[in-house]
Amino acid sequence: MTRGRFITVEGGEGAGKSTQAARLAETLERRGIATLVTREPGGTRRAERLRELLLDPEETGWEPETEVLLYFAGRVENVAKTIEPALAAGRTVICDRFADSTLAYQGYGSLASLETIRSIGEAALRGFRPDLTLILDIDPKMGLARTRSRSAFQDRYERELFDYHRRVRQGFLAIAEDDPDRCAVVDAAASVGAVAEAVLARVEARFEEFKAGKERR
Amino acid sequence: MTRGRFITVEGGEGAGKSTQAARLAETLERRGIATLVTREPGGTRRAERLRELLLDPEETGWEPETEVLLYFAGRVENVAKTIEPALAAGRTVICDRFADSTLAYQGYGSLASLETIRSIGEAALRGFRPDLTLILDIDPKMGLARTRSRSAFQDRYERELFDYHRRVRQGFLAIAEDDPDRCAVVDAAASVGAVAEAVLARVEARFEEFKAGKERR
Repeated sequence: MTRGRFITVEGGEGAGKSTQAARLAETLERRGIATLVTREPGGTRRAERLRELLLDPEETGWEPETEVLLYFAGRVENVAKTIEPALAAGRTVICDRFADSTLAYQGYGSLASLETIRSIGEAALRGFRPDLTLILDIDPKMGLARTRSRSAFQDRYERELFDYHRRVRQGFLAIAEDDPDRCAVVDAAASVGAVAEAVLARVEARFEEFKAGKERR
Repeated sequence: MTRGRFITVEGGEGAGKSTQAARLAETLERRGIATLVTREPGGTRRAERLRELLLDPEETGWEPETEVLLYFAGRVENVAKTIEPALAAGRTVICDRFADSTLAYQGYGSLASLETIRSIGEAALRGFRPDLTLILDIDPKMGLARTRSRSAFQDRYERELFDYHRRVRQGFLAIAEDDPDRCAVVDAAASVGAVAEAVLARVEARFEEFKAGKERR
């Protein structure tokens, strides 16, 4: 049994991560590649309880380092209970947000120490990392406008200022620059279909076995 | 303003940590030393929510590394919101359990990697450590018998096997041996009064300014 590939989809608010994760999964499934979509924070029942605690608009006073630890706690659960078993069973896993979001939001955005976040991440995940990370890049002005038209509900991150979201965006771009072998930046300002094509091109370029020729095996 | 002292009280189930923490605080207060008692996990409203999640007998399936991250998340909150401000204001803080409990229970007890726990702890607490750690040492057979007579309720740790609690005890003793400048082991099998005396003797030996001569300043 060949181990599955682990693909993460990252980016700011309104970049279209969930939509693109779902589109990519559909395309891969059509090509005969067993795929699982999961998301962060969350993915297991327990991790969902942590997600509730973290995103509750009433709970705005966590220390940035506490948030980092809570995000990695949910992540360790999700990796152990969902992601790793699926990869071992040969499925490709597409994860909507992963460790890079913690570095971008809590580090670049909320200004927790990048060094602290990296140390906690290394200790918690012990070398487990994505095979490919798609960074959907978008101007926060456009991204936030999209999420506002999508829903009246705004969780605490969406309520934060543009400056914060600009720092997060720069964070994602810095992560991509630091690790070009793993990360691919995709312009997310285009239409859903155009972004999906760009995403697929990056995936095919990275994984030979995902190309269209293998369809309906 | 002189910074307060940070004293942690550690040990297995039924060692009398809460009782001894309270007794020590009373004695120090009588001697004119402003003292705050807090506990782990918990100490702030948010950290108490994490405590509920961790000690819920229905939630038995966390990964040991997830538990480590959750305990340190609560700890970072407690340090930032409660312990550090009190120390800065000159109060002595007595904490019922701290980082050593995570190493003893999740590491020596549940067999999570000691190296991982130490790395997470260093990254999360960034050098913050107790000035003195009192390790109340007791045979798990006696300790567990005490907790059973105390309450019909048994949380998940108390339901675990003797082997586990023996490993936890050995863990605490190994921690004390690794760090003799910080840790003092006290035999907790004696009466409450005798243990309180032994605890006070250790505290006075470490902190000259806590001696009885300074009473009613």
